[in-house]
Amino acid sequence: MAAAGTMPKVVLVVADGIGDRPIRTLNGKTPLEAARTPTLDRLATEGATGLLHVIAPGVPPGSDTGHLALFGYDPYGCYTGRGAFEALGAGLVLEPADVAFRGNFATVQQLKDKTFKVIDRRAGRSLPEAAALTALIDGLALPRAAKVKVIVRHTTEHRCVVVLRGPNLSARIGDTDPHGHGDIVLKSKPLEKAASARQTASLVDTLTQEFYRLLSATPINAKRRQAGLPEANMVLLRGAGGHPAIPSLEAIYGIRSACVAGGALYKGVARSAGMDIIDVPGATASYDTDVDAKALAAATALATHDYIFLHFKATDTAAHDKDPTRKVAMVEKLDHLLSVLMAQVNRDQVCVAVTGDHTTACDVGNHTGDPVPLLIVGPGVRSDPVVRFTERACAGGGLGHLRGRDLMPLLMNFLDRTPMFGA
Amino acid sequence: MAAAGTMPKVVLVVADGIGDRPIRTLNGKTPLEAARTPTLDRLATEGATGLLHVIAPGVPPGSDTGHLALFGYDPYGCYTGRGAFEALGAGLVLEPADVAFRGNFATVQQLKDKTFKVIDRRAGRSLPEAAALTALIDGLALPRAAKVKVIVRHTTEHRCVVVLRGPNLSARIGDTDPHGHGDIVLKSKPLEKAASARQTASLVDTLTQEFYRLLSATPINAKRRQAGLPEANMVLLRGAGGHPAIPSLEAIYGIRSACVAGGALYKGVARSAGMDIIDVPGATASYDTDVDAKALAAATALATHDYIFLHFKATDTAAHDKDPTRKVAMVEKLDHLLSVLMAQVNRDQVCVAVTGDHTTACDVGNHTGDPVPLLIVGPGVRSDPVVRFTERACAGGGLGHLRGRDLMPLLMNFLDRTPMFGA
Repeated sequence: MAAAGTMPKVVLVVADGIGDRPIRTLNGKTPLEAARTPTLDRLATEGATGLLHVIAPGVPPGSDTGHLALFGYDPYGCYTGRGAFEALGAGLVLEPADVAFRGNFATVQQLKDKTFKVIDRRAGRSLPEAAALTALIDGLALPRAAKVKVIVRHTTEHRCVVVLRGPNLSARIGDTDPHGHGDIVLKSKPLEKAASARQTASLVDTLTQEFYRLLSATPINAKRRQAGLPEANMVLLRGAGGHPAIPSLEAIYGIRSACVAGGALYKGVARSAGMDIIDVPGATASYDTDVDAKALAAATALATHDYIFLHFKATDTAAHDKDPTRKVAMVEKLDHLLSVLMAQVNRDQVCVAVTGDHTTACDVGNHTGDPVPLLIVGPGVRSDPVVRFTERACAGGGLGHLRGRDLMPLLMNFLDRTPMFGA
Repeated sequence: MAAAGTMPKVVLVVADGIGDRPIRTLNGKTPLEAARTPTLDRLATEGATGLLHVIAPGVPPGSDTGHLALFGYDPYGCYTGRGAFEALGAGLVLEPADVAFRGNFATVQQLKDKTFKVIDRRAGRSLPEAAALTALIDGLALPRAAKVKVIVRHTTEHRCVVVLRGPNLSARIGDTDPHGHGDIVLKSKPLEKAASARQTASLVDTLTQEFYRLLSATPINAKRRQAGLPEANMVLLRGAGGHPAIPSLEAIYGIRSACVAGGALYKGVARSAGMDIIDVPGATASYDTDVDAKALAAATALATHDYIFLHFKATDTAAHDKDPTRKVAMVEKLDHLLSVLMAQVNRDQVCVAVTGDHTTACDVGNHTGDPVPLLIVGPGVRSDPVVRFTERACAGGGLGHLRGRDLMPLLMNFLDRTPMFGA
């Protein structure tokens, strides 16, 4: 029931890791079920609900592949490794032959056999010196590989992006990050037979040595040692990826799209889909993120864009921290975000969708393959009897159980932007 | 619970464009919700219901691709352009290398630069002289292309079919129909690099000139001009397609199938699936179509066929005309059709399914990607608690949410005709 002569617009709110499992300390409820969510309840009552298998039933999505699917892309067809999306999110303009990695500043101990044992994968997580440490290793010269440039950018906390630029590189190589505390930093493995993969893996091992040489010698780490803090004396690399070649949302649907997010990865996936990135002061991707500012920025962007992707990270972080009580609080913060957003938008012209990129189960502390709830409210949407935005209520909703890739055509259908197939 | 020794049969009733969205002037109801439908309610109560994403969630189906999917074919794999199905529906036997177009008799004005501006894409829609105009251009000789035959057949109102037959033709070419009033008739664009596509596009442009030369000179149009009617001085072409190569339903399921429909396109898709076409006097594909005659013809055909496809067009037409009140009336006409049909069939031996080929939303005036309701009643069907055949009621039905392609195996399963996979 959109007003005549107007083209509806869409706001997609992605609450990261929003889905969960029943939790004993919440009396068998999920955080969504335990939280007080008057706005989400109202939207569920007025709109249509369902469940999304973001990748496929039972498959835990990554943050990057999950978002690619929510934006309508086939992640199995176009995924090129997390590093590329992190790099794009950090504002780097990738060249087609670049190889990009997600990096973690980490604390390691060098053993007698010259390997490195991981003491803390995040060097304490909060890392005020990260920018200075990044400056120390950005542009470092690789012995015997003068033509390869090493670009390092800090993103948030202990997180950075490392890009290799030069001739004969391959992104088909393994991580150096062993992913566990007490594990040994890995030698990068070539994942294809091409000589370029062997050469790149070998370069990456040299890089591991150079990171340790430069970082362990800096006075910054001497000061951290004296202060009793873990040294940031290594960068662990993972998710090697090349530039993703996907058509923009504008090319596919003829829409102007924008992204409001704090985290680099989410901005990166959005940028790869051709979205404009709207920087919002106070959008930190942490518990303290300013949801009022984000909601207002999204509402404002509707004046110039047809589709706004609004990302909320804190629900995921609480679940990674295995903290159900905090996840409940973050769900209530999400509810507040939606109340601010809904107060700003013209309900006759704007379709609002709320979902997640994956379930992050507090009991597991990681992504799981359980589906996430989906809610769509707006002109033309067929409502259903569901009155709460929870995993179990939405399982009976009128949208049914869909794949993540179906969401974008579904939303664009409400904008009359999904092309007809046939005649 | 089919009687022993009898093989159940199926009637599939496709109500074109039956799905809709909540409509303000119907107090937020859809036409199906607003209509009085005692027979459909009874069938929903006795049978099982669900929703069909005819192509895929959010994707608006064409009339041709929608029916291909309902008949069990993968439209992405076998669709060859609307023209081929229109030609088959008009009773033409296509040769493998033919290129067929859907044509519209239209009113154009020749501009100083020799291009043509569209005044009326349908030359008034009702066109009593269509057969005579068709005779004038059927078999016309193309300058410099003596080996290419031009075949024209009139179907209904302003609609016709144009087939090119000859050497080195390609169906990978664009429309001449610009689809908007006031637009300039298009030059056909080759859509592939092959020389045959360039040659065919060029032939089509010659055809546009010849259509105007022959039609603008005929006394029929002089008379229309004098009577204040729009001249039918052009044929706009769209949907170039070659002969669809799909196996017949008999080859796949071993059934004899038949079609009861008014419109040429629906007969064409049915013919391509190997159905016998039953011509029913009074089946006009318009609001005035004789549903009693169609229902009786379908019931009679059950004596000789296992599967009857019964098409009802008027629900779609009302929605294209953005007339919700008329769509409600047409839903009630559909309900009457079903009451006549059900009075004729042996409920112990016949499975009846009702669905649509796509949603046509009255507010939009065109096909949309919203799913359509599905109802199946008959021996062996597991009933569900749903008591109405509406979009929102069927969303909670026992058949769940399926793809259009799933319908045929589902129906054939009730006939024990879907081949077992495995042993």
